[in-house]
Amino acid sequence: MAYFQSQPRAGRHFLQIPGPTNVPDRVLRALDNPTMDHRGPDFGILGSRILAKLQPVFGTTQPVIIFPASGTGAWEAALVNTLSPGDRVLMCETGWFAHLWEEMAGRLGILSELIATDWRRGADVAAIEARLRADTGHTLKAVCVVHNETSTGATSRVDEVRRAIDAAGHPALLLVDTISSLGSIAVQHDAWGVDVTVSGSQKGLMLPPGLSFNAVSKKALAAAETAGCARSFWDWRPMLAANATGYFPYTPATNMLYALDTALDMLNEEGLDNVFARHDRHAEATRRAVRAWGLEVQCEDPRHYSSALTAVRVPEGTSADGLRSTILQKFNMSLGNGLGQLKDRVFRIGHLGDFSDLALMGTLSGVEMGLRAAGVPHKDEGVRAAMDYLAGNA
Amino acid sequence: MAYFQSQPRAGRHFLQIPGPTNVPDRVLRALDNPTMDHRGPDFGILGSRILAKLQPVFGTTQPVIIFPASGTGAWEAALVNTLSPGDRVLMCETGWFAHLWEEMAGRLGILSELIATDWRRGADVAAIEARLRADTGHTLKAVCVVHNETSTGATSRVDEVRRAIDAAGHPALLLVDTISSLGSIAVQHDAWGVDVTVSGSQKGLMLPPGLSFNAVSKKALAAAETAGCARSFWDWRPMLAANATGYFPYTPATNMLYALDTALDMLNEEGLDNVFARHDRHAEATRRAVRAWGLEVQCEDPRHYSSALTAVRVPEGTSADGLRSTILQKFNMSLGNGLGQLKDRVFRIGHLGDFSDLALMGTLSGVEMGLRAAGVPHKDEGVRAAMDYLAGNA
Amino acid sequence: MAYFQSQPRAGRHFLQIPGPTNVPDRVLRALDNPTMDHRGPDFGILGSRILAKLQPVFGTTQPVIIFPASGTGAWEAALVNTLSPGDRVLMCETGWFAHLWEEMAGRLGILSELIATDWRRGADVAAIEARLRADTGHTLKAVCVVHNETSTGATSRVDEVRRAIDAAGHPALLLVDTISSLGSIAVQHDAWGVDVTVSGSQKGLMLPPGLSFNAVSKKALAAAETAGCARSFWDWRPMLAANATGYFPYTPATNMLYALDTALDMLNEEGLDNVFARHDRHAEATRRAVRAWGLEVQCEDPRHYSSALTAVRVPEGTSADGLRSTILQKFNMSLGNGLGQLKDRVFRIGHLGDFSDLALMGTLSGVEMGLRAAGVPHKDEGVRAAMDYLAGNA
Amino acid sequence: MAYFQSQPRAGRHFLQIPGPTNVPDRVLRALDNPTMDHRGPDFGILGSRILAKLQPVFGTTQPVIIFPASGTGAWEAALVNTLSPGDRVLMCETGWFAHLWEEMAGRLGILSELIATDWRRGADVAAIEARLRADTGHTLKAVCVVHNETSTGATSRVDEVRRAIDAAGHPALLLVDTISSLGSIAVQHDAWGVDVTVSGSQKGLMLPPGLSFNAVSKKALAAAETAGCARSFWDWRPMLAANATGYFPYTPATNMLYALDTALDMLNEEGLDNVFARHDRHAEATRRAVRAWGLEVQCEDPRHYSSALTAVRVPEGTSADGLRSTILQKFNMSLGNGLGQLKDRVFRIGHLGDFSDLALMGTLSGVEMGLRAAGVPHKDEGVRAAMDYLAGNA
Repeated sequence: MAYFQSQPRAGRHFLQIPGPTNVPDRVLRALDNPTMDHRGPDFGILGSRILAKLQPVFGTTQPVIIFPASGTGAWEAALVNTLSPGDRVLMCETGWFAHLWEEMAGRLGILSELIATDWRRGADVAAIEARLRADTGHTLKAVCVVHNETSTGATSRVDEVRRAIDAAGHPALLLVDTISSLGSIAVQHDAWGVDVTVSGSQKGLMLPPGLSFNAVSKKALAAAETAGCARSFWDWRPMLAANATGYFPYTPATNMLYALDTALDMLNEEGLDNVFARHDRHAEATRRAVRAWGLEVQCEDPRHYSSALTAVRVPEGTSADGLRSTILQKFNMSLGNGLGQLKDRVFRIGHLGDFSDLALMGTLSGVEMGLRAAGVPHKDEGVRAAMDYLAGNA
Repeated sequence: MAYFQSQPRAGRHFLQIPGPTNVPDRVLRALDNPTMDHRGPDFGILGSRILAKLQPVFGTTQPVIIFPASGTGAWEAALVNTLSPGDRVLMCETGWFAHLWEEMAGRLGILSELIATDWRRGADVAAIEARLRADTGHTLKAVCVVHNETSTGATSRVDEVRRAIDAAGHPALLLVDTISSLGSIAVQHDAWGVDVTVSGSQKGLMLPPGLSFNAVSKKALAAAETAGCARSFWDWRPMLAANATGYFPYTPATNMLYALDTALDMLNEEGLDNVFARHDRHAEATRRAVRAWGLEVQCEDPRHYSSALTAVRVPEGTSADGLRSTILQKFNMSLGNGLGQLKDRVFRIGHLGDFSDLALMGTLSGVEMGLRAAGVPHKDEGVRAAMDYLAGNA
Repeated sequence: MAYFQSQPRAGRHFLQIPGPTNVPDRVLRALDNPTMDHRGPDFGILGSRILAKLQPVFGTTQPVIIFPASGTGAWEAALVNTLSPGDRVLMCETGWFAHLWEEMAGRLGILSELIATDWRRGADVAAIEARLRADTGHTLKAVCVVHNETSTGATSRVDEVRRAIDAAGHPALLLVDTISSLGSIAVQHDAWGVDVTVSGSQKGLMLPPGLSFNAVSKKALAAAETAGCARSFWDWRPMLAANATGYFPYTPATNMLYALDTALDMLNEEGLDNVFARHDRHAEATRRAVRAWGLEVQCEDPRHYSSALTAVRVPEGTSADGLRSTILQKFNMSLGNGLGQLKDRVFRIGHLGDFSDLALMGTLSGVEMGLRAAGVPHKDEGVRAAMDYLAGNA
Repeated sequence: MAYFQSQPRAGRHFLQIPGPTNVPDRVLRALDNPTMDHRGPDFGILGSRILAKLQPVFGTTQPVIIFPASGTGAWEAALVNTLSPGDRVLMCETGWFAHLWEEMAGRLGILSELIATDWRRGADVAAIEARLRADTGHTLKAVCVVHNETSTGATSRVDEVRRAIDAAGHPALLLVDTISSLGSIAVQHDAWGVDVTVSGSQKGLMLPPGLSFNAVSKKALAAAETAGCARSFWDWRPMLAANATGYFPYTPATNMLYALDTALDMLNEEGLDNVFARHDRHAEATRRAVRAWGLEVQCEDPRHYSSALTAVRVPEGTSADGLRSTILQKFNMSLGNGLGQLKDRVFRIGHLGDFSDLALMGTLSGVEMGLRAAGVPHKDEGVRAAMDYLAGNA
């Protein structure tokens, strides 16, 4: 059982929201080690080791900065280190989290221009290119994309966004939120030419929330020299200076670093490509279940299907939140809720992080029994369809 | 992942053997507390508390003795405290574990008379009564019954055995092994008139292996005064003397007692009756799955169905161990093997301990996909049948 | 041993820096529980319980905000929620941390006026009053005080600072850093009329680093309505709105909240007054040891002695860092280093958090043996003096 | 704090009884891993690895058997596997534990002949040789020696006992209890020609209680073929058969094996010789403290001083138990009590297992302050004397 449950429940809770994810026992056992002196000689060795192991996960040989703060903070860090109040940025509004990022930019004095979608697909690459071509004066300082939109289960093609920017010959920075993709879906900071890759600990990295990240390009570092946003906690420069020897300019979240060190070992032991293939497989099984239930996947474009989560639309006249409540009550499983315009219209199944075929089948069984218990019109064929797929290529 | 795995596996292992069971996180976190002084004043308070909480789980107000040894030891303790070399006992051979107990008795110099079964049902109550009636000289000193036969999934009716002994007017002691029933299936040491109830920590009590138990009746204590088997480690008398103030005569397994204290709290919080009903429900769902696969439950008598585990017969010409190996390899789940005459003919699904509907569905899905992957003839209807049952009364 | 040590060391590391402190086993076992859904119904119950238990530790009935970020972040939050770029504040430069806070203010566009000290005492209350009286135009928007200056071991009299502000009839906000005092030395947010009390998790609260706090007065909340600093992550308003039902506006550091919940229980079980008395006692024993060694306590004013740590001056011509290195190498104990102008001139002994007489004696023994091993001129009388004091009033 | 304390106590408990010892955090974190299938393929790999790593700690290339039972059980196993009811053995009564072993032998039908000591030294080698020479009929089947007598702090010279047996040309088996020496004081099963080395988990091996050991010689194995004591749980033969592939004949204490695997790694990382030297050093420092207090070490023969614990005599007219109670109450430290004829006359300081200079100094400071608080006549010079020694050769 969890640390706190208002009623006793036998067995483990199924935490199938799209993050925080199920933290592996091995990571929890690293987390709970005694805190060490973050200024002592051993810390520098540990810090350097962690920073080095982080880079391949981001697909980069450039610096990755670790903030002792949850993921939202790394969004802020990406903006305040590269931009100045009054700057304009292009935001791709793929869903609720893209919307929240835009809202944050506004609070920080940055003006956003939105490229909307219908929240059923990833970023509109053609529209980005068109807008940038039109911006002949280069007033747009950055393009902001959420790689994996956690509210809809749509994964934008960051490689195509990069090509669009290049095709338009536009100097805008490319800022990408990979909070719910990193460690689950391939992220290629260098190959995609991303300037700031934002991420967090509590999804594919299999940690509790409490750490967040900025991978930064040379161009981003140059922008930081002139960026006018006031910053101190989020400032990259003292971080990079201290990181050179494995230290941090102010107290790091030491125990979370233990957990990160261990989680990175686990990803490497499985092999990143195997990790991504596992996520692809579970996502495909889930979508087959959804269709077999006669329900609709929120993401309409197969090229944008998310391997980290699947948002599922409930039929008109039924309540997604009522279904989630039934499932939590009867089957001790948490699912993600619909956000913003999707409130009560979708539920979200997280199948990312430390996950297996049988845990997925427990999850899908819980959804199928929940649909029945909540009286949501559906066909009881989803679990069968998922097994057909999984058994076929186990 | 477990402490040791020869290859990396994402997600938690499904440990669905009929014990050791999945130890709850809360129990593991009790287990790993610093060891305390087992002679200090605080220990007596803790020891007394644990001993008091144990009694209701055994359905007794009489003493329950805790050995710092795994379950096999408590079998030995039951025999050496009540019997003398050369004594005769009546053993009900319901399966492999009854057989092992009989074998142990032999090594300790006790002569066993067997009442055989076909390993597809519990103890033969009529045969017991007949044999006892015939034993007019009362040469049989004890009747030994395995309450829940872990090798076959058959639960003997200990209440009926008691009535048979009484009907025969026979003074034999009643020794009952509840290792795989206690905490999962109701045990009524007092109401059933059991003289020694043997049990262990690693099944329904949700602990790792390492503790075992004897609940003892007044009659058993009287027998201990004259029993001729040599004994020291297993001797009840110094145990009972020390237990009076919450202590033990030699070093107890302190950390396992922490875990036991916590596990007893968890059983009480859920409520023992709810715990038993949960096990009944999961067992029924499992049997429905087995039948829907077109396979056979090893136990043929519905009155003896076990709520702790289900042994499943594989079709002639197929290998149960091959199936188990496929499932372990492809789906990271351990199932129990066939023992003795059932070797390679059955696999056993443990559904006892800290368990839930969704963990059961993960388990049954793993079996169904494994049957397919291993090429065992079956119908892919088991998971569906289990969900039909579970969703209907969630 | 710690999670990482570059060489094997038997026994536990003595982490006697003035924070992070030795995290109690019970808190570590709360920390490592499975992460839960921070949007689910149970979370609100837990969150509300924690927020309620936090208030008495701050001596307040007003809101306490929890940031999923280490302590430095709460400094920034205090500034950006109450001030506007270009605002002037009065900073009491009692040591290195006061200096760092001033530096941070500068980076955020806030102009600091310094009231210096010689780093051997707490804030200069008379100078504060004089400066405020002179500020007839009320250009100073806030007075910033570090309650317990971790670099020097001097505890400022915040009550007197409050009276000085009142005596001057000045409307400045009072912002107080209690990062290294909270939970070790009494903090009275309400009684002292503090507007923002800043704190962190890794000192007297006995947690790892990773959480920080702002307790906020009505006047501070009013200031937040007009404060011009751009802010999003640190913004109090969405925090307070979500906290009303026990939730957070963005992902909280869930596992750290488990640890906090447990640590607050521990403080309450011991009783806050007992906790403070224990710290006073260990500090007095430490100072007696320092004097008996013939060394000097950095803090010269007994009214400002810190009960959380003691900074000790080494004789001219000897290196405090050399001593610390010897002690770490030979005795596996970390001590705090001298910062800023005290670099290599002092070492700092942390005696705060989850600490006991015998752990203190281990600590002081390590210092005394280290002084000898490092060849620092001293008398071997410190341990004896500390025992004389502790034994006298155990 | 421990799992259970009847009153809240800040800081860690000092568990300075001569075992169970302070279990290292790293071992506790191994212990609390999920239980695995003890019949699955991975278990055999783990089991084989552990069995192989155990041998060097016993100084043997012969088999070491692991019982899932606390140390007293391994005493019983040594006797019942090698002896027959009515056999005579020579017991060296060096203290309380030797006495208990003799008592156990009696309960198992084995006749003991005692070679007494004054409980202030190890086994009387000359008397052993004399008695064996006199036993021309070889009626004595075994010589039983407690290597490190935990009740007195005297370590017998097993090498000399071996030479005495050889000198007498006597075929008796040599059974040695190393429960409180193994992992702290060198044990040389092969070089010393020991036939059965008995040990347990909760002392120098740094584990909780719950495992025990028999290292067995070829001669002991041969004796087992003809030994007449009834045995089943303790029977070596099925153990050795199963161990050949890394398995056990009945359910092992799986989680304790995880802990053992990790503890063996820790001993190897430090190096066994370093481990022993560390224990020697702490024992010498402790004895110097005892003498400086003006008290007497119970062991009078320096050749038999124990490096695992020191038993200290209190002056006539004072109560050792009163002192221990004062120390527990005021300083949160557990010390060992006097046993048998030493009841209330000695207290015992455990300085074995995972231990360090500073933990020893905390311990000795607690004793010194306790002597003062309890009004035991002494000089306050013990801590100083220990530091003089430790600082001189740190």
